[in-house]
Amino acid sequence: MARIVMKFGGTSMAGLERIRASAARVKREVDAGNQVAVVVSAMAGETDRLVNFCREASPLHDNSEYDVVVSSGEQVTAGLLAIVLQSMGVAARSWLGWQLPLHTSATHSAARIRGMDTDGIAETLDSGVVATIPGFQGLTEGGRITTLGRGGSDTSAVAVAAALKADRCDIYTDVDGVYTTDPRIVPRARKLEKITFEEMLELASVGAKVLQTRSVELAMKQHVKLRVLSSFRDVPGTDIVAEEEIGEHFVEDQLITGIAYNRAEAEVTLTRVADKPGSVAAIFKPLAANEVNVDMIIQNIADADGRTDVTFTVPRTEVPRVMDMLAAVQDEIGYESASYNDRVAKLSVVGVGMKSHTGVAATMFTALGERGINIDSITTSEIKISVLIAEEYVELAVRVLHSAYGLDDEEAAA
Amino acid sequence: MARIVMKFGGTSMAGLERIRASAARVKREVDAGNQVAVVVSAMAGETDRLVNFCREASPLHDNSEYDVVVSSGEQVTAGLLAIVLQSMGVAARSWLGWQLPLHTSATHSAARIRGMDTDGIAETLDSGVVATIPGFQGLTEGGRITTLGRGGSDTSAVAVAAALKADRCDIYTDVDGVYTTDPRIVPRARKLEKITFEEMLELASVGAKVLQTRSVELAMKQHVKLRVLSSFRDVPGTDIVAEEEIGEHFVEDQLITGIAYNRAEAEVTLTRVADKPGSVAAIFKPLAANEVNVDMIIQNIADADGRTDVTFTVPRTEVPRVMDMLAAVQDEIGYESASYNDRVAKLSVVGVGMKSHTGVAATMFTALGERGINIDSITTSEIKISVLIAEEYVELAVRVLHSAYGLDDEEAAA
Repeated sequence: MARIVMKFGGTSMAGLERIRASAARVKREVDAGNQVAVVVSAMAGETDRLVNFCREASPLHDNSEYDVVVSSGEQVTAGLLAIVLQSMGVAARSWLGWQLPLHTSATHSAARIRGMDTDGIAETLDSGVVATIPGFQGLTEGGRITTLGRGGSDTSAVAVAAALKADRCDIYTDVDGVYTTDPRIVPRARKLEKITFEEMLELASVGAKVLQTRSVELAMKQHVKLRVLSSFRDVPGTDIVAEEEIGEHFVEDQLITGIAYNRAEAEVTLTRVADKPGSVAAIFKPLAANEVNVDMIIQNIADADGRTDVTFTVPRTEVPRVMDMLAAVQDEIGYESASYNDRVAKLSVVGVGMKSHTGVAATMFTALGERGINIDSITTSEIKISVLIAEEYVELAVRVLHSAYGLDDEEAAA
Repeated sequence: MARIVMKFGGTSMAGLERIRASAARVKREVDAGNQVAVVVSAMAGETDRLVNFCREASPLHDNSEYDVVVSSGEQVTAGLLAIVLQSMGVAARSWLGWQLPLHTSATHSAARIRGMDTDGIAETLDSGVVATIPGFQGLTEGGRITTLGRGGSDTSAVAVAAALKADRCDIYTDVDGVYTTDPRIVPRARKLEKITFEEMLELASVGAKVLQTRSVELAMKQHVKLRVLSSFRDVPGTDIVAEEEIGEHFVEDQLITGIAYNRAEAEVTLTRVADKPGSVAAIFKPLAANEVNVDMIIQNIADADGRTDVTFTVPRTEVPRVMDMLAAVQDEIGYESASYNDRVAKLSVVGVGMKSHTGVAATMFTALGERGINIDSITTSEIKISVLIAEEYVELAVRVLHSAYGLDDEEAAA
């Protein structure tokens, strides 16, 4: 017997037919003798409807009341799933965020999970009853409802799994696992059997949106075994595990785990920045104060004049604000010119295998160069190499790299 | 300064425009220096939508989960009203049923109110903040959500008013008060300035659906001053008060307060029932066991054979079931024949004035007789006379009685 947490997203809860299909998956685990807690999202579209009500009520709404309104969507699906499970002969009851309770910070609409009481729900599970839990919601010390931010139900599921010391946490979603890259661009993309937490985080942060980044971070920290699998098809999913569990042959066989791309960013360049202590801080302090999310930062060594160019990327939607902020601090920083390019794409190859192998970067640069794709700028981490290229080349570049690293699934349709 | 409870129904919460109009009424009371708690219904149509989800999930759904699902509608409007009030510069926060808490029995989907803690909400009100409270919902001792049954938000409002010792409880609705009769039938119907709790109960029970009957009963028992008024028009409403507060001149001037009708019932007659102890019980026991709501019961004295006819009314929709039940106990009861008539209407004249005046019944019978309207059967209470007549005469009969008792508003359009 195992204790497992299952999580179903909005498309798996969109209407009674889908809820019944999800319930059938829960029943299968129960029939196999497992204790099951199920974390659910709101019906697809429902959270948007509720968020829009709040915006219509006031553009500057009180986030504590926003949380009261939008948390109701998951309350509905948790109740309905319990009813459907009962109709299939599976004992079930709902445990709302305030009933557990799942404790959070008081940062309404973007609360952080602090922990969860398990006495009540453990009794439910131990007596063979399935617990249905609305994701996305928690309770402050002051007894008010919070929500965790959009997509927070993945994080709820991991937190519940950690608190319950569950044997695993299965995330059911509308894709059937994590792929080597976007199958819409590369039909030969392969589904990964396993991926490490670190690789998953790098892929998520560059735009492969299978799981909420926070949920992966939490699972890594709390040693929760995560699995991503399809709500709609009975096929094996992808396990997200610690590096030591990935198995030696994996790392040997495969230098690169996945290739991600992101075309939502723009590149900003400041020329001839004085290379002196504090000048880089002067660039990024106003951006941080205005909550602009800066991603890549590239600075090369200074020239003979003691000046250097600084390039960084920001979300495209923020470019007008960012250019204004930079203009305001030009005298302080002492740069020559500020320019931006919003026709760039970021391309990243990710893999724990590259830690112990050389030549990964060379393969990338060679493959791109052979196709005449120019590399604008480069950054690297221990398990990732990212480059900026002209946006128009992004599909070609992903396909070229997918082949170059031997990731193509030879059995899949070309 | 007064402490008041305001209650807005589903049509007053149907969308942000309506919520803003309701909020403006709240603001007016706050600006007048009053402490205000607002009890709200779900948006019109929302509870039906949620109930249908539960039915679709399972026809025999668990009512404790039904309560989790359907209570969410009021949670949404309570949060939205707080946001809208804040946007108008009125400090506000929501207090959900489990936060107050409003204690109820554990009879899910039809819970009875046991009481309400006032410490938290009183602090809110005393600090000049408006409390927005979802109606219809409460909490069991075991910490689970309950609902009070359809239309329960009126009852929630009265319970909140009683617990807070509010100076009055204003029920905003889509009619602008209680009328002497249905204005769709009698254009000269007059809006009543005042009506007693007892009269209101008698009118409600015969089909004048302005307030939920339970809410009037609770207000009477808890000495809550009730007022019904329009959400949409700025006109005086109707006060529902104890008999001693109605004012002597009212009773003197006006024998009859209102006239109600009901065409949802059918008349069932059993002929030649043995007039012996237990035979009437034998008729009504199976009906009660099957939760058939029996309204009027008429039995005359027995004839020389020791036999009598028994007539009673039941909801028309129940007639087939009732006839089956009666057939099953024919031998036991020993009646001769069972028949029904579902083309009847019940007509009731109600007024505390009739307690101290004679001739009220005579006026009724004369007025109906003059128009050739035959009376099938008659029952009376201290403040009500009800008759069954053929359904086709109902509009005519209401108009005739409205004039006969001097209720016509001479200034209104004929």
